[in-house]
Amino acid sequence: MKIAVVAPSCSLKREAAEQVAALADARGDCELAIHPQCFLSDGHFAGSDAERLAALREVMADPTVAAVWFARGGYGSNRIAEAALRDLPDAARAKTHMGYSDSGFLLAGLHKAGLQAAWGPMPQDVLRDGGEAAVTRALDWLVRRDPAAIEADISAPAFAFNLTVLVSLLGTDLEPDLTGADLLIEEVSEHHYGIDRLLFRLTASANVRSVARIRLGRVSDIPANDPEFGKDEVAIFEDWCGRAGIPFGGRADIGHDAGNRVVPFGGSRL
Amino acid sequence: MKIAVVAPSCSLKREAAEQVAALADARGDCELAIHPQCFLSDGHFAGSDAERLAALREVMADPTVAAVWFARGGYGSNRIAEAALRDLPDAARAKTHMGYSDSGFLLAGLHKAGLQAAWGPMPQDVLRDGGEAAVTRALDWLVRRDPAAIEADISAPAFAFNLTVLVSLLGTDLEPDLTGADLLIEEVSEHHYGIDRLLFRLTASANVRSVARIRLGRVSDIPANDPEFGKDEVAIFEDWCGRAGIPFGGRADIGHDAGNRVVPFGGSRL
Repeated sequence: MKIAVVAPSCSLKREAAEQVAALADARGDCELAIHPQCFLSDGHFAGSDAERLAALREVMADPTVAAVWFARGGYGSNRIAEAALRDLPDAARAKTHMGYSDSGFLLAGLHKAGLQAAWGPMPQDVLRDGGEAAVTRALDWLVRRDPAAIEADISAPAFAFNLTVLVSLLGTDLEPDLTGADLLIEEVSEHHYGIDRLLFRLTASANVRSVARIRLGRVSDIPANDPEFGKDEVAIFEDWCGRAGIPFGGRADIGHDAGNRVVPFGGSRL
Repeated sequence: MKIAVVAPSCSLKREAAEQVAALADARGDCELAIHPQCFLSDGHFAGSDAERLAALREVMADPTVAAVWFARGGYGSNRIAEAALRDLPDAARAKTHMGYSDSGFLLAGLHKAGLQAAWGPMPQDVLRDGGEAAVTRALDWLVRRDPAAIEADISAPAFAFNLTVLVSLLGTDLEPDLTGADLLIEEVSEHHYGIDRLLFRLTASANVRSVARIRLGRVSDIPANDPEFGKDEVAIFEDWCGRAGIPFGGRADIGHDAGNRVVPFGGSRL
């Protein structure tokens, strides 16, 4: 099967592309089509909004492409998400779209538009310690829907998001219906007080209050707080879930690391 | 007149309290009542939620207090804002409430509840370079409504917010009606990409799209981005205001600095 790689946020590193292409070649069950847009650079982004949008729309419209795999996160997919979802080509409906972190803006909008979206490792992850396992896990799910790639305890309908990304898309046209959801949330590089503030906003949402449960993925690279915040991330989630009457379901096996698992969005494709 | 100082977010430094008290004494036109809660410490906060809430409600209910002045920002007023606004005492309606930064959660809710709220310098600002002028400006407005303390170009109804705080309160019970507003926004310690992401969320709001104009205060302590983001904060605001059809009104004289001016919320008390 043919898997197209595009970069709606930041540029893919050449060495990551080479390593992932070699992994895919060695498997023999898939062909990676790494779009040249992945290596463009325009300030923070992998090319201008127009260039990133054009590459994404091109692969979504290509009937020979079975899956669209987002190259990496960073920041920027929100700048083109609404335009990417306009006048969707029929060919987009037959394919899976996968990524995580900043890609959550697109995953949310794609799911809302009725397309297949899944949280999961991305090509740039191959550069992490143990990253080969992460990329293999992603390909195992994209190519043959290997159930071992999926987060072990999820219940349909499931969603997974980076906390900052989810809070940033609440109230925008990208916000999906979370009713009854198993909502998995992870975070990276955010102070404890910032996590607390994000949860204030998150748990004020009527949509978020309609979920079946919130579960907490890994929270990594938390900057030091002076003084100590006074609560860790689990206590912060328990506090705000308790205030809002949302069941807190404990930990989840997702995060900005090589252990990050696949979470197919919604309920019909688990 | 009696001005009560409480700390709904983080602790006030003793040396700031002493310097501001001396300034007020020397003026002879006001009496500062610095609540002992300002010096409590509970992890990140100036005391527990219960302690901060109790002090705030105590001074709001005190008929001898003419103004409530928030000691400093940081983080945490959102944790007690909704509870502070329940069953409001009549005495709260006769007084002004002033602060900025994290205090914006309270200012928004107080204004929405029909009370007097104003953005302006806080006691802890006395420790900044030139901070004595900032505190004097705040007192000039609190005590005698000195028009020279007010941001020069504001049009009623006016609001001023820290960008992160404003985005954090959109969609919560604290969100005020911004129809027709002169909306002044400043930010501190946020990457350019983070500012861009916050503006995506801000300008998606129908309430924000109903303002007369957005103006940009100072954006200070922007962490370095690698690579360079590609646009400065003015270009970012112009971009998102343009996308959303919101008039961008240029710069405003507010910020996390000693030059920060007073912005009385709403229209009737300018």
